[in-house]
Amino acid sequence: MLGMSDGLTVPFALAAGLTGAISQSRLIVTAGLAEIVAGSIAMGLGGYLAARADAEHYANELRRERQEILVIPEAEAQEVREIFAGYGIDKENSAGVIESLRQRPADWAAFMMRFELGLEAPVPGRAWRSALTIAGSYVVGGIIPLSAYFMFADVRQALRVSALTTACALALFGGIKGRLTGVPVVRSSLQTCVIGGLAALAAFAMARWIAL
Amino acid sequence: MLGMSDGLTVPFALAAGLTGAISQSRLIVTAGLAEIVAGSIAMGLGGYLAARADAEHYANELRRERQEILVIPEAEAQEVREIFAGYGIDKENSAGVIESLRQRPADWAAFMMRFELGLEAPVPGRAWRSALTIAGSYVVGGIIPLSAYFMFADVRQALRVSALTTACALALFGGIKGRLTGVPVVRSSLQTCVIGGLAALAAFAMARWIAL
Repeated sequence: MLGMSDGLTVPFALAAGLTGAISQSRLIVTAGLAEIVAGSIAMGLGGYLAARADAEHYANELRRERQEILVIPEAEAQEVREIFAGYGIDKENSAGVIESLRQRPADWAAFMMRFELGLEAPVPGRAWRSALTIAGSYVVGGIIPLSAYFMFADVRQALRVSALTTACALALFGGIKGRLTGVPVVRSSLQTCVIGGLAALAAFAMARWIAL
Repeated sequence: MLGMSDGLTVPFALAAGLTGAISQSRLIVTAGLAEIVAGSIAMGLGGYLAARADAEHYANELRRERQEILVIPEAEAQEVREIFAGYGIDKENSAGVIESLRQRPADWAAFMMRFELGLEAPVPGRAWRSALTIAGSYVVGGIIPLSAYFMFADVRQALRVSALTTACALALFGGIKGRLTGVPVVRSSLQTCVIGGLAALAAFAMARWIAL
């Protein structure tokens, strides 16, 4: 889902922009497909590496916490005390939790990961799933605005159809995203449409301006 | 920084891809600039809305937690007990923390936000900063691979220079990113280069294949 609105917006805006400068549908399709391929790979691999980096960061920090709990338990206990002090909980009231953690080093390390560092344990296989989801969404999203240029040789006609189908897709996607993330559906729908429209308009103006 | 490697990779790959199909530097520059404008706006605004949505989500959840602490404190106390039980801490040992939280509802809500929901308080103004950083990095990143096409009328020559400058920029950027995120510098450098190269190669092959 993450790549979908970028996939809809950027190829649409690129194609619309080129319509201001190029009169052959075929060239616009070529540029659009090249963009979809480049964008989906760059973003998919980028997502993969980001997820892998997160997983490594987690593993490193976990190793460090375990080591510290083993070597300097007093300093770690003091850190727990300070975390609780940040919520106005004094030494006496946090003593029970600290005593309990001292008796289970593995739980203590997990506790520090979450409560000191705010890190979640990474889900195995997330990196690949994340990469494929982003890349796939980008491709699916990008094909929608481009399909009009496959069908119409006249680029102005293609642009009109492309704008219409892309606006519908953006509205639908924005609505679904709003539903999933708890943002009001109509607002989310409008927002994704406005982003796509603005990006397309700016790209169109830019390409027009260069071509003149 | 976030938009920089996308900004370097996608316009480079698009321009490289079009070099396989178009023989005029001017058209490639037009397509590249249209992509940069579209990409920077789409990603910048996307980043803005994502940060705004996070801030709203936080505010909504905080309101809900405060309400629950006021109306159903027993259920909330039970939730705290369960969080601690997840780390093997029993009822007796977590009692001190729970008693202490009961006496300060505001701290209690903050505690639930972090320890139950794992949410961080959003930094004010982050949405705009995030949008401008992403868009700015995308523009700066995108100008680098494209600049060769400004300078050389021969697209093959421009592609060679573009590949070289982009590879250097990706390596440098990957190194800096590795340094900031704690990933080994050389590996991070190579990774960003490989992503850019793969995306460009695929876009090039695709554009070539269509153009034939």
